Amino acid sequence: MEFTIDQIAQLLDGNVEGDGSTRIRRLDKIQEGTAGSIGFLANPKYEKYLYLTQCSAILVSEDFRPQKETQTTLVRVKDPYVGFTKLLEMHAKIGKSERSGAEDPSYKHESSTIGTNFFRGAFSYIGRNCRIGDNVKIYPQVYIGDEVTIGDNCIFHPGVKLYSGTVVGNNCEIQAGSVIGSDGFGFAPQADGTYKNIPQMGNVILEDDVSIGANTTIDCATLGATRIGKGVKIDNQVQVAHNVILGENTVIASQAGISGSSVLGKNCVLAGKSGIVGHIQLADRTTVGANTGVIKSVEEPGKTIFGYIGMDIKSYLKSYSIFKKLPLLQDKLRELEKKL
Amino acid sequence: MEFTIDQIAQLLDGNVEGDGSTRIRRLDKIQEGTAGSIGFLANPKYEKYLYLTQCSAILVSEDFRPQKETQTTLVRVKDPYVGFTKLLEMHAKIGKSERSGAEDPSYKHESSTIGTNFFRGAFSYIGRNCRIGDNVKIYPQVYIGDEVTIGDNCIFHPGVKLYSGTVVGNNCEIQAGSVIGSDGFGFAPQADGTYKNIPQMGNVILEDDVSIGANTTIDCATLGATRIGKGVKIDNQVQVAHNVILGENTVIASQAGISGSSVLGKNCVLAGKSGIVGHIQLADRTTVGANTGVIKSVEEPGKTIFGYIGMDIKSYLKSYSIFKKLPLLQDKLRELEKKL
Amino acid sequence: MEFTIDQIAQLLDGNVEGDGSTRIRRLDKIQEGTAGSIGFLANPKYEKYLYLTQCSAILVSEDFRPQKETQTTLVRVKDPYVGFTKLLEMHAKIGKSERSGAEDPSYKHESSTIGTNFFRGAFSYIGRNCRIGDNVKIYPQVYIGDEVTIGDNCIFHPGVKLYSGTVVGNNCEIQAGSVIGSDGFGFAPQADGTYKNIPQMGNVILEDDVSIGANTTIDCATLGATRIGKGVKIDNQVQVAHNVILGENTVIASQAGISGSSVLGKNCVLAGKSGIVGHIQLADRTTVGANTGVIKSVEEPGKTIFGYIGMDIKSYLKSYSIFKKLPLLQDKLRELEKKL
Repeated sequence: MEFTIDQIAQLLDGNVEGDGSTRIRRLDKIQEGTAGSIGFLANPKYEKYLYLTQCSAILVSEDFRPQKETQTTLVRVKDPYVGFTKLLEMHAKIGKSERSGAEDPSYKHESSTIGTNFFRGAFSYIGRNCRIGDNVKIYPQVYIGDEVTIGDNCIFHPGVKLYSGTVVGNNCEIQAGSVIGSDGFGFAPQADGTYKNIPQMGNVILEDDVSIGANTTIDCATLGATRIGKGVKIDNQVQVAHNVILGENTVIASQAGISGSSVLGKNCVLAGKSGIVGHIQLADRTTVGANTGVIKSVEEPGKTIFGYIGMDIKSYLKSYSIFKKLPLLQDKLRELEKKL
Repeated sequence: MEFTIDQIAQLLDGNVEGDGSTRIRRLDKIQEGTAGSIGFLANPKYEKYLYLTQCSAILVSEDFRPQKETQTTLVRVKDPYVGFTKLLEMHAKIGKSERSGAEDPSYKHESSTIGTNFFRGAFSYIGRNCRIGDNVKIYPQVYIGDEVTIGDNCIFHPGVKLYSGTVVGNNCEIQAGSVIGSDGFGFAPQADGTYKNIPQMGNVILEDDVSIGANTTIDCATLGATRIGKGVKIDNQVQVAHNVILGENTVIASQAGISGSSVLGKNCVLAGKSGIVGHIQLADRTTVGANTGVIKSVEEPGKTIFGYIGMDIKSYLKSYSIFKKLPLLQDKLRELEKKL
Repeated sequence: MEFTIDQIAQLLDGNVEGDGSTRIRRLDKIQEGTAGSIGFLANPKYEKYLYLTQCSAILVSEDFRPQKETQTTLVRVKDPYVGFTKLLEMHAKIGKSERSGAEDPSYKHESSTIGTNFFRGAFSYIGRNCRIGDNVKIYPQVYIGDEVTIGDNCIFHPGVKLYSGTVVGNNCEIQAGSVIGSDGFGFAPQADGTYKNIPQMGNVILEDDVSIGANTTIDCATLGATRIGKGVKIDNQVQVAHNVILGENTVIASQAGISGSSVLGKNCVLAGKSGIVGHIQLADRTTVGANTGVIKSVEEPGKTIFGYIGMDIKSYLKSYSIFKKLPLLQDKLRELEKKL
C-alpha cells in the first residue's frame, strides 16, 4: 500500500489539515508510528500522543479541536475509529490480492486445473487431478497432493501441506505450516508387544469460511471424513484427530486438542490448551475452559465446562476455592479431634 | 486405484450380483459413499443403509439375504469386514508406491547416494554424504541435511526436516512438517542475566519401524544421541527433548512432551498432553494418563500414573472424587464446629 | 570437521600419547564413541570407560596416570572438560559457517538485498524490498516475505517462515519449521453466530540475540508489534499470540503458550506447557512452573507461580499435599460425626 494523505482523505470522505502530498505506507498506533505511517485518535485519553506522534498523519473526528500545536497532518473524518478500520480492511485486501500468476519454479501436474486470478508462489506444488477454483492464492512452498478439491477465494500461506484427497470449500484461509490430512494415529497392538499400522484411508473436508492458524494439524479419517464445519475458526498448534466432526462456527484456541471420533456441536468455544478425549459428543454452544480436560459427553447445550477433569465450571471453582484453604481445613479438623 | 467391481471380486475371491463392469475409485462407509465407491456391510445394525446407499458396490457376506431390493451391486465374500480391510491395505500400498523417480526440480548433492525404487518429490533437498536405502519415498519440500543415514522402505511426507547427522532405520514413516534433530534447548545463564548457547553436537537415531506424526519435534542430543527405540509410535505435535531415550514399542499420543535426558522403558503409553520432566526414568509398561505431569521416576513396571502432579491413578481419582465434594465436606466441618 | 589428533592437540595446547595421525570426525562420549571420534575424561567415575572406549582419542588432564593399558590415543591438556567444550564450540562454528553462496534454484526478488558471506539454500524464498545483513544463513525451504528486515549473523533453519513485515535483529537463530508473523486469532462475533475476520496489520519484532526452537509460532500484532526482547530464548512448539511483549532474557520452555496482549517482564522463566491468559502482566523475574495456568497479573518481581490455577508455589504444594490425603481427611471427619 502506498497512497498520499490526500488520496486517503478522499477514500474516507475526509478533509486534510496540513501537507496532503506526503506518502503513507503503513498503519500504526498514534504512540508508536513513524514517518510514513498513519494513525488515529478516537479516545480522548490518547490526545497527549497527538502532540508527540511521529506518524505523518492522524485521523481525528470532524469536530475535534486540538489544545496545542501539532506537527502531524490531520485528516478529519466522521468517525476516526471506523475510518481507521476501513483502512485496515483495505490494506488487508490489497495485501492479499497483490500477487498473481505463477512464480518460477513452481510445480503443477498437467492433469490439475486452477481458476482465474490465481497466485502460485515459487516452490509450491500441486499434484495430480486437482480441481482448484478462482481467486486462490497458493504461497511459496505450499504442498497440495493428488485429487484435492479447492473452492474459490482461498488463501494458503507458506508451507501449508494438504494431503491427497483433501476437500476445501470457499473462502478458507490456512496460516503457514499447518498440515491437513496427515495419517491418523491408528495402530493395532500385536501379541508380541509391537504395533501394526492401521491404514488411514479417509480424508479431511473443510467446509466454507474456515480459518486455520499456523502449525495446526488435522488428521484424515480412518474411513470417511474428518469434517470441519462451515465458519469454524481454529488457532495455532491445534490438534484435530481422525474422524472428528466440528459443527458450524465452532472456535478453537491455541494448543487445544481433540481426540479421535469426537463430535462437537455448533458454536462451541474451546479455550487454549483444552483437551477432548475420543469418542464423545459436545452439545451446541458448549464452552470449554482453558487447560480443561473433557472426558465425557456434554448433552445439554450452552454449558461451560472447566477443570483438570472437566465439570460444571461453578462446581469446579467452588471446590477449588476450598482446595486453596485445605491447610486451614486440616487444622480445624485436628482441633476438633483434640477437643474430642 | 481404479478397478472394476469384477476385478475386486476376483481379488477377494467373491461373487458379483449386479453390474460388475462399474469402475471403483474409492473406499467409503456404506452410509456416506457416492458413485464410484465401494463399502461393506458386516454389522446387521447397518443393513438399513444398504437400501439407501449411493456406493456403486457393497461387500456382503456369502449367506446374506437382503430384505428389500437394492440399487447397488453386491459382492459376496466370506467375511465382508476382512475383505474390506484387504482393500484398505491394498489401497494404502498402491497409494504409497505409486510415485517413483525424481521430480524436477529437486536437489541432491552429488556426494549422496540413494538406493533403488526411490521417489524424490519436487523441491526436496538431500545434502552431502547421505546414504539412503531402497524403496524410500521423499515427498516434496522434504529437507535431508548432511551425513544423514536412512534404511530401506522409509516414507518422509511433505516438508519433513531431518537435520544433519540424523540416523533413520528401516520401515520408518514420518508425517508432514515434523522436525528431527533440531538443536536442544540448552543455554548457560551468565552473571549479567543473559544466556549463552550451549553447542548441541549430538544427533537423533530412529531405530527400525518408527512412526512419527505431523509437526512433531525431536531435538538432537547435546552429545551422543537422542534415541527412539524400535517400533515406537509417536503422534502429532509431540515434543521430545535432547538426550531422551524411548524404549521399544513405546506409544506417545498427541501434544505430549518429554523433557531433556529422560529415559522411558519398553511398551510405555503416554496419553495426550502428558508431560515428563527431565532426567527421570519410567519403567517398562508405564502408562501415563492424559494431561498428567510426571515429576519423578517410576521404578515398578506396569504402573499407571495420573493427575496434575502424577501419582498412582487410583489414589488420584479417590482424592479427586472428594475434591468434587469439598463444599459438602466444609459444611460438615462447620456444623461439627458449631456443635462443639 | 576433520582433523588429525595432532592438529587437535595443537589447537588445545596439549600433548599426544599414541598415534597422532588418526583422523577425527566426531565428538562423542567416552562410553559411546566409535572409531574416528574423540571423547574426554574429567570425572574419575568414568575412568573405567577409558580402558574400554572405542574412541580414537581421549582428552585427559596433564597429570592423569592410567591404572591399566589403553588402546586409545591420549591427548593431555590442562583441563579436559574445558578443552572438550572448546572443541564443541569450534565444531559448532565450523558446522554453521561452512555453507555460503546461493544454491540453485533459490528465489530472491530483485528489489531485495543481502550482505556479505551469506548462504541461501535451495528452494529458499526472499520476497520484495527485504534488507538482510551480513553473515546470514538461510537454509533450504525458508520463506522470507516482503519488506522483511534482518540484522547480521542470523541463522534460519530449514522451512522457517517469516511473514511480510517481520523485523529480526542481530545474532538471532530460528530452528526448523517455526512461523513468525502469522495472523493473530482475531474474529468478531456477528449477530447470526458467525465470525468475521479482524484484519491483523501489525508485525513481529525480534530484538538481538533471540533464539527460537522448532515449530514454534509467533503471531503478528493486530496493530503495532508483537515484540520479543533482546536475548529471549524460546523452545520448540511454543505459542506466542498477537501483541504479546516479552522482556529481555526471558526463557520459555517447550509447549508453553502466551495469549494475546500479555506483557512479560525481564528474566522471566516459563516452564514447559505453562499457559498465560491474555491481557495480563508478569513482573520481572517471575517463574512459572510446568503446566501452570496463570490467570492474573503478577506485580511483585521474583515470585514463583505454580498450579492448575496458578498461585504462590508454596501454598499450592501445601494444599496439594493435603489433596493427596483427602480420603484420610474424609474418614476422620466421618469418625468425628459418629462420635457426636
